[in-house]
Order: sequence, then structure tokens, then C-alpha cells
Amino acid sequence: MQFHQNGFMPGDPTIADPADRYSAPRASEALPQEVDVLIVGCGPAGLTLAAQLAAFPDIKTCIVEQKPGRLLVGQADGVACRTMEMFNAYGFSERVLKESYWVNETSFWKPDDNNSDNIVRSGWVQDVEDGLSEFPHVILNQARVHDCFLDVMRHAPARLEPHYSRRLLDLQIDPAARVEDHAVTVRLERIDPEHEGQVETVRARYVVGCDGARSTVRKAIGRELHGDSANHAWGVMDVLAVTDFPDIRFKALIQSATEGSLLIIPREGGYLVRLYVELAKLEIGERVANRNITSDEVIAKARRIFKPYTLEVKEIAWWSVYEIGQRLTDKFDDVPEAELATRLPRVFITGDACHTHSPKAGQGMNVSMQDAFNLGWKLASVLRKRCAPLLLHTYSAERQAVAKELIDFDREWAAILASDKGAGEGFDPAETQRYFVQHGRYTAGTATHYRPSMLTGESKYQHLAKGLPIGKRFHSAPVIRLADGKPLHLGHIAEADGRWRIYAFASSGDPASSASAIRGLCDFLAEGRQSPVRRYTPDGADIDSVIDVRAVFQQAHRELAIGAMPSFLLPRKGRYGLLDYEKMFCPDLKAGHDIFATRGIDRDKGCMIVVRPDQYVAHVLSLDAYAELAAFFDGFMVRPEGK
Amino acid sequence: MQFHQNGFMPGDPTIADPADRYSAPRASEALPQEVDVLIVGCGPAGLTLAAQLAAFPDIKTCIVEQKPGRLLVGQADGVACRTMEMFNAYGFSERVLKESYWVNETSFWKPDDNNSDNIVRSGWVQDVEDGLSEFPHVILNQARVHDCFLDVMRHAPARLEPHYSRRLLDLQIDPAARVEDHAVTVRLERIDPEHEGQVETVRARYVVGCDGARSTVRKAIGRELHGDSANHAWGVMDVLAVTDFPDIRFKALIQSATEGSLLIIPREGGYLVRLYVELAKLEIGERVANRNITSDEVIAKARRIFKPYTLEVKEIAWWSVYEIGQRLTDKFDDVPEAELATRLPRVFITGDACHTHSPKAGQGMNVSMQDAFNLGWKLASVLRKRCAPLLLHTYSAERQAVAKELIDFDREWAAILASDKGAGEGFDPAETQRYFVQHGRYTAGTATHYRPSMLTGESKYQHLAKGLPIGKRFHSAPVIRLADGKPLHLGHIAEADGRWRIYAFASSGDPASSASAIRGLCDFLAEGRQSPVRRYTPDGADIDSVIDVRAVFQQAHRELAIGAMPSFLLPRKGRYGLLDYEKMFCPDLKAGHDIFATRGIDRDKGCMIVVRPDQYVAHVLSLDAYAELAAFFDGFMVRPEGK
Repeated sequence: MQFHQNGFMPGDPTIADPADRYSAPRASEALPQEVDVLIVGCGPAGLTLAAQLAAFPDIKTCIVEQKPGRLLVGQADGVACRTMEMFNAYGFSERVLKESYWVNETSFWKPDDNNSDNIVRSGWVQDVEDGLSEFPHVILNQARVHDCFLDVMRHAPARLEPHYSRRLLDLQIDPAARVEDHAVTVRLERIDPEHEGQVETVRARYVVGCDGARSTVRKAIGRELHGDSANHAWGVMDVLAVTDFPDIRFKALIQSATEGSLLIIPREGGYLVRLYVELAKLEIGERVANRNITSDEVIAKARRIFKPYTLEVKEIAWWSVYEIGQRLTDKFDDVPEAELATRLPRVFITGDACHTHSPKAGQGMNVSMQDAFNLGWKLASVLRKRCAPLLLHTYSAERQAVAKELIDFDREWAAILASDKGAGEGFDPAETQRYFVQHGRYTAGTATHYRPSMLTGESKYQHLAKGLPIGKRFHSAPVIRLADGKPLHLGHIAEADGRWRIYAFASSGDPASSASAIRGLCDFLAEGRQSPVRRYTPDGADIDSVIDVRAVFQQAHRELAIGAMPSFLLPRKGRYGLLDYEKMFCPDLKAGHDIFATRGIDRDKGCMIVVRPDQYVAHVLSLDAYAELAAFFDGFMVRPEGK
Repeated sequence: MQFHQNGFMPGDPTIADPADRYSAPRASEALPQEVDVLIVGCGPAGLTLAAQLAAFPDIKTCIVEQKPGRLLVGQADGVACRTMEMFNAYGFSERVLKESYWVNETSFWKPDDNNSDNIVRSGWVQDVEDGLSEFPHVILNQARVHDCFLDVMRHAPARLEPHYSRRLLDLQIDPAARVEDHAVTVRLERIDPEHEGQVETVRARYVVGCDGARSTVRKAIGRELHGDSANHAWGVMDVLAVTDFPDIRFKALIQSATEGSLLIIPREGGYLVRLYVELAKLEIGERVANRNITSDEVIAKARRIFKPYTLEVKEIAWWSVYEIGQRLTDKFDDVPEAELATRLPRVFITGDACHTHSPKAGQGMNVSMQDAFNLGWKLASVLRKRCAPLLLHTYSAERQAVAKELIDFDREWAAILASDKGAGEGFDPAETQRYFVQHGRYTAGTATHYRPSMLTGESKYQHLAKGLPIGKRFHSAPVIRLADGKPLHLGHIAEADGRWRIYAFASSGDPASSASAIRGLCDFLAEGRQSPVRRYTPDGADIDSVIDVRAVFQQAHRELAIGAMPSFLLPRKGRYGLLDYEKMFCPDLKAGHDIFATRGIDRDKGCMIVVRPDQYVAHVLSLDAYAELAAFFDGFMVRPEGK
């Protein structure tokens, strides 16, 4: 898709008339007085969370935002492979794939040895290693990512739209409240001209601060961002420009001899490009805003770095200046470390409210959305009484560790990019490139690895599935669906619907035989007294509504008779008791994709992969580890009422 | 995507609330009094044409429909590979891919040798041969295909919505009218209760009848459907059902011993299935409607064919009975054969208005949409004064031949499926399967082959591109974009925008060299006195606005320097003169896709492929065949005014 040729226009580029691209916000309605979850802030984290909760009509969610409406321009743009996997679960990856710029390769530029005023290409690397994800690394205006989430919210069972023009005043947590109480009282001020100064009070079971680096929610629970003070000023601008720089449509990192660094991020539509331009070293404690840097100065700096290439900026779609600092808060909820055993979290913070860093590794939006994806299903499970409230402690435990890694990574990467360790004396361009490649899995978002906990099992059976490490995201692979021969990605059956998934990889031999391990497992899950499927599925609900079990066989799909398979894998669902034909899969042998080989599954024994609602591998177990499977779910789930 | 589990619901399945799935039709506005094109009928052909014309804000189009609103259920559902390629040009193939059922394999069933009351599987074939198209054969409710086109129309520059509840009364063609006159006067009656009986008169330059088998437009120009009278009655139903028939999620053709044939077409959402059930042989001239067949009778018949398998129908989403007849009209416009040289067409007919046949080869909707795609760019080119009105004669010439082939194919296929040549005495199940495989390219829609004409060149240079036959659709293949390393399908750069495309495949050697054939071609196209690009592009318009030239090189993308390429391939566009970086491509060697090998391009000489706006190969020429290239375009194009 090519667009933005005659100037940047916000909104859906498939809609010809820009006036049709954005609907007016419905901020005029008053806030509800009581909600299950109040989300503060309509950034990537807030919208990821809202879109997740909107899937559940039995949860009352409200999302507020200080701005008067939808974001239209600027800000983050990097979408990591792992985030694309999550978008797929939300149902809009194909929209992003179509509209975005794909980062296929990254080029590196250094001072010319013969004339250090000029730059030359020092190397080229593939941006994402082969096989790391079925999705590419892409770039798309954060505003368009918001639009996708807003569509999901609007179309979801709970039909959610943000309430704009609300400023959080304060929040109070009632320490004496019971679990089911609306323990948090929040006061918000309307700031649109029509309602200016009106104060609304909302009582919520849970409040989530997705309100950015200056988070009022964070302050209200007494937490602070700790970390380095800023010392480098950068400019960022989205431009329509003419240049003879040959890599203008590649992600490119330029390190000049004396003028600093510049990072090129080509953008969606074929014309727009984002430039990150290193501006100056700041004094300790100095803020870049106080320097009154103009866009002309940023362009002038970029031109000096670009030499001998020219740069003629025709339009600036958005620009800003910022200083780099790596800051982190020590806990992502309102429960002090010392009170973990006695108190349940009521207020959470996500994204920039808990961690801030430089934008140039493209991590901010991605990690923030993953924060929210981690929290969303947990909140929903607790509110829907499927899991014990205890589960909510795992949010801060899991995501604070991830943020810590991010901060450490960013400190190193920022130092490499900043010119004081840059292209001057002793500079080795290969070092930059090496570091970039070495951390490719990290920046793709696939390196996140949760430690053993109530949600992350021990590695006793890890050898049965060497390519699916416990604690990392479930790495999809191609398969063929038994019932209709469709080639698809196994991981893409997982929607953002709050359900757990068990992928049962069959052992060798005929799965239809009465002695097969997969039949044994199905019998246990269907009938066993300890079966988590039986125990935690509400009466009258579809058998897969809490834990969705799928089987993968070793045979090609024409070799198996669907009628001979365990009936647990052909469940009757819905008001008509129709058969669900989408539970069984085979390797895509014709296309050369044997998932057993690709993911290192033990062919003799097979195994079970237990996958969380946010796509992380919670456990790997042998097919007959019934008791261990039961014990795992018993660790955090609760039986439905009356069961 | 799984849906329809608790009952069939029309509209976009990603929208949770069915009430939000369809907007009320805007039929209330009066029709315009004068239009360029009046389209009669909102079926697949009418909407394909309307969506094409909506791309041009300078063309005034109006589309009317007798029904009171959008189609919601039933009718056609097969989408051939070739149609998916067209959907891609319209920008919604990814929506259809996501929502549809994919026909991966077809199974064949015959009477059991041991007990001929029962059926057994006789064979299984891959539905589409490998490499035939980059798109699968899919199945999706015609109503959803309409929705996609309606979205394209609504979002396009000309913003088009149908006027519903209009019945065509009559039309008159003024024989004395000049080319630019509104020569056709059409009277329509409003049939919605609010405006019942009001008559509107529209004067149009062109009228297109997309109004089905009983087309009033066809009758108004004095044409008739000729062909066999019906002799077989069939029932068709979309059902939610429970069965133990193992291939219920495969396309399956059952030929029973004594009860006739049944065709299973699984449908989108994982639960719905369409059944075509052979009912009875009719007397000559008898209409099935007169038999008062009930849905219970159709189900009972299906059950008898299904034996020994059970079929329990839970809900009928839509059903109908019909008789098979193959009928065709001899010309698709208002110009009698004898007046071809002296008269220009003003009225056209498309789809079922010109050809009717059995639905079971899944051809009807596909051929109708291809009719409209063929006509759409021609009408637009003439109205926009890019092509001579003479061009309009090619519509009937090209499409009537295609329809004739369809009718002949359908007659054979219907006979094979009908039980009088079916599973009784002398029946050979392998014959059915063989015929199906043999005609796979035909049913996929990729066999269409236009004969030499003003639009289809002679085969003098065909040997330079053996895999891209002149007159057949441009068969896409994967490439890498030079400027950003993106892997994509070469054919997918073609949008339904009325533009011609020239794919210049470079000869071996350095394309940057001053002696290279590709540079020679670019110089000719940019500067040559006879260059069709120079001659037919209006002053001030982008250089690629009429003929869009793309180059494919033989080298890998890292081996070429974009700055050294002909500047014609890096054109400046739009109000800022921004560079368009999407004109140059390389083979995707890493992924093993060498387009030169795949499409049989002569590596020594290279070649030019001239592709029509509807994706058909118009010509294959050597890279230096400047005069022949010029002559080809001079045959039907006209110079812009004042040039």
C-alpha cells in the first residue's frame, strides 16, 4: 500500500476521504458510578487491556483518557514480532501486515575512512533471524495500532468506547474492603470545555494506571520511577523528504564522525520516514525542553550527519525532542513487598507508568502492550471467579523482571548509539552491528522468559518438547487441520479470549488405538475425577470454555479416520450440540513442516504443552502426568460456584 | 474463525452484536437525472463494476437494485483462485482469506460394492494443483462478498452507495446520439412502501444490466437466453447439522446407487455446510417451482443418499430448489453483429443476464465478477478519454467466448453429476474424479484465454516468457523489492485502478550499465517520441498514472545500487515530487523463488510483459521492441486533450 504521497493524513488509508477516517469521540456521557475495572489512559497499554476485558460482557470496564479524543499522529511506531503474534490473537494482525512497513533488513553506516566528514555503509544484517516468528517486525504509526484496538473494543461483546477529556484527581483504596468490594474510589475531573471542572466519582474493584511516565496513578499508590538522569538529547521527526541516501527505505543506523548518530525508520505508505537525530549532551539534570530546540535545528543536524547525501524535507508530519533516561519503579501494584502474604493488589500500573527508556530499540509500545496482555486475562479470570485473587500478585512479579531487563538492555544500546562512545576515536562499527544481531531475539520480544511460579511449571518434562521452553511464549508452527485439510499455524487458534490451551502432541503409534497415550489423556480429561477440564468448567458451559484442548498427531491427515478419534476431541457445543471439528491437527508433511521436528517434540512419548491465555508456555508434561496437570491448575484456579 | 455455532447470523462475524452488523440502506434519496454509467442490479457483477468505477471521482456512477437492501443470506458461495487474485486488486483478499472456508481437498464417494445402499469413499484429490495461484479456492457467503465491495465503494474516491427498491421499467437508446451524449434514457419505478409507484428518469451515457437471469436490460435490447431446457431438479440448503459422515468438512461429491447425487460444500465459520441434493428428473419444459417441494423433502432425500451415515439438521439458514439448464445469449451488448463497424455499444449485460447454468461447479459468481472486471476498466478508460470508444466492442467479444466455454463445461459436468449417467449400471467413480482434476484449472478461473485482438498481441515474442501466456491472466510470483528488501508478490502491486502495467524483466548483465537493455527501454519510455508513457500521460499527471512500469532484475537485491538505476524507475510524484521507491524488484533467491525460472523468462534477453488493468497479459515483447510497444498502445488509446 502506498499513501501519504501528497502529505501525511491520519486515519485508515483505505478510506479515500480523510473526513471519513475518524469518528467523533463519545466523551459526553457521564462515567458509570461503579465498575469492575477502571483503566486510566488510552495509550497502547490501556487499549490492549480494554480490548481484552471487552471480550467479557460480564465484566464492567471503563477506560478514561485525558486527551480530547483519539490519537491521530506521532509517538511510537515499532511493532515487534512478538507483538504481531499478540495482534493475531486480538484478530487484527492481517490489517497491520497490510498497512505497515516491514523491517526486513537493517543497514549500518560509519564515517568514511578516506574522508571522515562523509558516511559509508559498513554492513547489512537481516533484521529478524529466520524462524524466530511467523510474523515480521513491522513499523506502523501508534495511532493506527490504537485504531485497531478501538475497533476490537467497539465490536466486542462488552462494546467499549473510551471516555475522553478526563483528568484523574486522586484515588483512595479502602484497606478494610473485602475481595468483592469496590475498594478503590477514584475522582476525575472533566476537562472538555462543555463540562469543564465537573468532578465524577467512580468506585472500582480494580484500577489500572496506563497513564504514562508522569502517571498520576503511580503517584497515588506512592511509587516512583528510579534511575539515571537524562544526559542525551534527541530529536525525532516523521517527514516526507527527498534524499539520495540509498538506504532511506531501510532501517538504517548512521554513526558519523563528529555530528552524532541518526537512526532511520522507514514508515508505512512508502514515502514517510522517521528520523531519530542525536542532538546534544545535556548537563546533569538538564531538560531538553528548556533548550527551545526548533524543527529546523533538528533538520540541520540530520543534514550534517547525512553528508555526502542530501536531505530535503518537504513536510513534517510530527516531531519532538526528548532526553534519554532509563527509569524503573520497583513494583507494579499497590501492595508493598512486606505485605505480599496478607494483602491483595487493587491498583496496577503498566507501560511508561512503570518503565521509561529510549525509544530507539522500538521497545516501549511493545513492552507496554505485553504488560497489559499479561494483566488482562488475570483480572478477567479473577473477576469471573475462575482464578483465585492471589493470581494478581504474579503480574508485578513477572513484568517488573521484564522491565528490569529492558532498562539494562536500553542502557547499553543507548550508550552504543550515543556519540561519546560512538564513531570517534576507538570506534568499531562492527561492534554496533554485533550487539544488534546478538540482541535480535530480545528486540523481537521473543526472549521474555518467566521464572518458575504458580503459573510457570518446573522443567521436569522439558526434554519432551525442547523447542517450547516453559516460561517463554508458545512458538507457533504450521500444521494441517485433520477435519478439513486446512494448512494453518497452530498458535493462531489462540484468541485473546482468556482461555487456557493444552496442546497434546501424540506419541507414535495409532492415536485411535485404545492403548494410545492420547486416548488415555482424553479419557482422563473427559471423565477423570481430578480432571481440570471437568473441575473448572461451569455446568452447562461448552467443554472448552475454560481449558481448550487440541491434539496434534504424527500421521498425515489422510491416514487418520476422524470418526475413530476420542470423542473428547470432537466435542458437541452450543445450543444445537454441533460438533467442533477444529481440535485435531497433523504435521504439514507435504510442505515440509513437521512440527514434531521443528519444535523438538519427543516422538516416542509425545507430550502436553499447557499454554496461558497470554500465549506463554506454562508447563510441559508427559501425556500421562495427570496428577501433575491437575496439581498445576489446582494451584490457582477455583471451582465454579455450586460445583 | 469459528462462528454460526448457535445459529446462522448474517453480517461481519467479527462484530459481536448482530444489530451492529448492517447499516440501513440509503434508498431514500432520489436518483440523479444524468449519469455516466447506470448499473442495474446489486449482485456480484453489479458490485464489482460499481466498486471499479468508484475509484474514479471524475465518473458519475449510479447503481440501482430492486431488493429493499443489502443481501444477507444465501445464493452463491464459491470463490475461485482467480477471483481471489481480483479481490486482492480490490484490496480485500485478506478479509476473505480470514473469514472463508478453504477448499483444500475434494473427496469422492460411491456406492459400496458390498452393499450398494451404502456409500464409501472412492478417492481424494487436492482441490487446486500446486502453483496454480498464490491464493486458495475458498467458500464464502455471497452476501459477505457483497459487503466487501460495498465497503470498497463507500471508501473510494467517488463514494458510492446503491439505490435500493428500484425496478427498471424500460430503456431507450437514442440512435442519433453522439459519443459523448447521454444516449440512454431509463425509467425506473420506486417500489418501497414510502415511494411506491414513483417513476424516475435517468439519462446515462452507458447502462449495464447486472440484473440476473430474468434481466430486464437484456430484454430491452432485444436479446434472449438460448439453450437447453431444464431437466434436472436440485435442492440447495445451508444447514447447521450433526452427522457422522467423516468428510462433512471437506468438499465432497457423493454419487449413490439409486438416490442420486449430493455435493457437500463446507462453509465459513466451522459449522455451516451447504448441501446440493439431486431431487428428480423433470419433464421437458417442467419448472421445479411447480412441484412445491418442501425443505423436509430435500432433507429426507439427503438422508437417503448419506446412508449409512446419519444427518440431523438443526437449523436451515437458507434453502431453495432449482432446475439445471445451460443458457447463453449470443452477444453481451446492444450492437448487432452486422453493425459492429458503424455503431458503438451503449448498453451491456453481464453475469446471469447473459449466461445461466448449474451452480455446482462454483462458476456463476466468479464468471459474473470477471465479466464486470473486464468491462469496468474499459468503460472508465473511455469515459476518461484515455481509450477510444471502439474498445467497448471487446467486452462482448471476449466475455461471450468465455461464457460459451462455461456453458459447454457445465453441460458435461452436470451430466456426470446427474444420476442418469451416474452411479448405476456402468458407472465408473474414477471417471468423475478424473474429469474434476482435468478441469481444475478451468474451475479455478485461470484457464481464461483471450484471443488475439486489439487488446491481445500476437505471440511473436512469447518464447521470451513461456510461463506468461499472452491472453491469460498475469500469473504472479514472489519477488523482493529492491529499495526495502520486502518479500512480496509481483502481481499484488496491481490494484483495480484502471492503470496498465509493464513489467520489464531485465536481461543478464549489470542493469546499471549504460548499454543495458533495461536502461535503453527506460530511456525510450522516458524520452522517446513514440513512447506510450509520454504520449498518453496527461501533462501534470504522475508519470505512472496511465502506464505503470516496473522492473525486475536478475541480481539479488544487495548486489544492486539503487542510485545507479535509471531515474525513470525512481520517479518523482505528487505535489512534493517525492521519490516512488516501489518500481524495482529482484528475485527472492534466499527463499528459492527465482521468478525468471518460475515464469520461464529468457535470461539472456529479458522481456516486457504488458498487462491490462484487469490483470490479463496483453503482450509479451522483447525489451527493444519499442515500435511494437508503441503500435500496440496506439491501437486503442487516445492522446490526452491538448497533447
